[in-house]
Amino acid sequence: MKLSQKVQAMQFSPIRKFNVYAIEAKEKGKKVYHLNIGQPDIKTPKAFMEAVKNFDSHVLAYAESGGLVQLQDAIANYFKRFGMDIERKDVLITNGGSEALSMIYTCLLDYGDEVLIPEPFYTNYQTFISAAGGKVVPVTTKAEEGYRYAYADRIEKVITDKTRAISLVNPGNPTGTILTRDEMRVIADVAKKHDLWIIADEVYREFAYDGREMTSFGQLEDIKERVIIVDSVSKRFSACGARIGCIVSKNQELMSNAMKLAQGRLCCPTLDMIGATALYELDPSYFNEVRTEYEARRDAVYEEIMKIPGVVCQKPGGAFYIMVKLPVESSEDFLVWLLTEFDDGGETVMYAPIQGFYGTEGLGRDELRIAYVLKKEDLVRGVELMRLGLEKYKELGYK
Amino acid sequence: MKLSQKVQAMQFSPIRKFNVYAIEAKEKGKKVYHLNIGQPDIKTPKAFMEAVKNFDSHVLAYAESGGLVQLQDAIANYFKRFGMDIERKDVLITNGGSEALSMIYTCLLDYGDEVLIPEPFYTNYQTFISAAGGKVVPVTTKAEEGYRYAYADRIEKVITDKTRAISLVNPGNPTGTILTRDEMRVIADVAKKHDLWIIADEVYREFAYDGREMTSFGQLEDIKERVIIVDSVSKRFSACGARIGCIVSKNQELMSNAMKLAQGRLCCPTLDMIGATALYELDPSYFNEVRTEYEARRDAVYEEIMKIPGVVCQKPGGAFYIMVKLPVESSEDFLVWLLTEFDDGGETVMYAPIQGFYGTEGLGRDELRIAYVLKKEDLVRGVELMRLGLEKYKELGYK
Repeated sequence: MKLSQKVQAMQFSPIRKFNVYAIEAKEKGKKVYHLNIGQPDIKTPKAFMEAVKNFDSHVLAYAESGGLVQLQDAIANYFKRFGMDIERKDVLITNGGSEALSMIYTCLLDYGDEVLIPEPFYTNYQTFISAAGGKVVPVTTKAEEGYRYAYADRIEKVITDKTRAISLVNPGNPTGTILTRDEMRVIADVAKKHDLWIIADEVYREFAYDGREMTSFGQLEDIKERVIIVDSVSKRFSACGARIGCIVSKNQELMSNAMKLAQGRLCCPTLDMIGATALYELDPSYFNEVRTEYEARRDAVYEEIMKIPGVVCQKPGGAFYIMVKLPVESSEDFLVWLLTEFDDGGETVMYAPIQGFYGTEGLGRDELRIAYVLKKEDLVRGVELMRLGLEKYKELGYK
Repeated sequence: MKLSQKVQAMQFSPIRKFNVYAIEAKEKGKKVYHLNIGQPDIKTPKAFMEAVKNFDSHVLAYAESGGLVQLQDAIANYFKRFGMDIERKDVLITNGGSEALSMIYTCLLDYGDEVLIPEPFYTNYQTFISAAGGKVVPVTTKAEEGYRYAYADRIEKVITDKTRAISLVNPGNPTGTILTRDEMRVIADVAKKHDLWIIADEVYREFAYDGREMTSFGQLEDIKERVIIVDSVSKRFSACGARIGCIVSKNQELMSNAMKLAQGRLCCPTLDMIGATALYELDPSYFNEVRTEYEARRDAVYEEIMKIPGVVCQKPGGAFYIMVKLPVESSEDFLVWLLTEFDDGGETVMYAPIQGFYGTEGLGRDELRIAYVLKKEDLVRGVELMRLGLEKYKELGYK
């Protein structure tokens, strides 16, 4: 019996492989500060469980393949706040943003087709694109440039006749970079010129700091037929375990073909859609408090990071990740050392090495990602441990 | 912008396209008996919602990618009842049986690889296999033979060097056919001889009537490395809206590669996994009542069907579907006529035409599927309406 070449070529989660060292460290009694995970500690709004508990049908039946109508409507209303003319038919509910991406790539890609993605990128993109038979073509960004990627010449350089789409996360994971309006325009124009789709993963939309505007590619009127938005309740409402996301697009040919896939898997979980509806019906003021909290955490983390000698780091504008370039040869080796050899008062730290987030071999060896989803004092202590560890690491002659 | 050839080649649900006629009929005041849908009316055990309501974490967080450990264990225990040595590591929780199938095909199929499936088959198999880049190769069965397919010569005739797996549903959807132990042996031996995987969708396992044994391909010791079981709570516990299924296999190479896909989509919905755990922990006696109810329905439906002159129908051994071959040229045309032109005392009936369930062009034009998931008197009245409709149809000179 054979397994497919495509599945064998996929990688395991590049973050998860270091878990074994963290588990061992804890077994030895060390406290590990987890700066590696994207699981927010913000409480899920009570409205979710209240709505779920009110479910009183005797049969937990299949829902509509496109999603509960009331959830589609609640999401359409949410987008109206951004001046976007989104209707029920433009919204397809999915099993998290993950399934949205997976469906989109299946709709767009045949064997060998290419998708441009700024690197470093959320590694699961590689999995979804490979599963659809396609290929990731990275657009390389640099720590020193704040991981910005909206340069027409750099993007056009890697476009071929196999290129079908530009896929991006805005605000960015893992970089936290937010596109300016001008940058969005650059990408829109490249997409128009080369007749490409824009797949805009905007699950961090509300996490835009320093007064930056919350935006969507769906606001650019002249490209609305080529924009496919991926969205989700996971980060927005701290409801990762609900697995409710959606595809939003004004392109009815895309939506109609995505519906074939949706019908294939029948429907999304009924209870979670009921809960998600209640979340989308929350007053928009809900986001202010959450945003303020994350912004304060970002500032605290950034301040602490800048105390590390030789570090390269630019304060990100959004999401809840921050990229750090350390004066080490390998952030993976350093992490293993932190977990196995180092402690300060019985404490150490875990982050996400970022090498596996690059499509180009050899890049990102000295970079890492911190998720600022813990309370401020833990974040600061975690970064302090990185700094103290690095001092020791250098003293011991490691590079 | 292009859409993929594979998604464009996929069909919409062949059942759903007739919904528009049913809706119109209802708008005109007709009562429509829905014998077309596979949504059971059996109550979901209360244990599900009770467990869900007890969830009291403040954050609805991501679960493990492979599923909640307690659910994996509950499923492993469930399989032990069948004498199968299933452990936690052999169980991967999925978003319904649908995602289980989708992941399996992605794990096994590269572009152009083939999967043998007895036809008529559950149409979504086509969607999942196409999405994975593969091709369905049907093994044709006949109404007159009770849709049996375990004939080595017929299966071997369609095996090529591209064949990777035999995929089957047992008890069958749409045919209700149950394999005997001898027939399972035939299929196992063909799989061994040609080094194929066996993908056994066994979501209807408990729905085996007339004292037939509940079985699993996992019970055949000599092929346990090549068997991949698909399972789900949807039909078993009348919890279709929970979307909780699983892949079960002793083949660790398969499980480990499927885990890459599971990590890609992060996890299944936490609350539904909690509810599903409670379902799997129910006493096995739960199934007796449900089985007795379905068996009585099958008998009532079958008796009523046999009153139709010229019908071909064999009493199925399991699941909750029954196939009917009518003396008409097209069961699709007849259905549209029933919905638009016919009524008896203001009532008419809807069934699932089966042509779209065949991979071979032109087959099944005179066949249909009835799902016996309504209460007995409604089922009997529905079939009576088919008979009365057919009389009128013939009187009017239709063929």
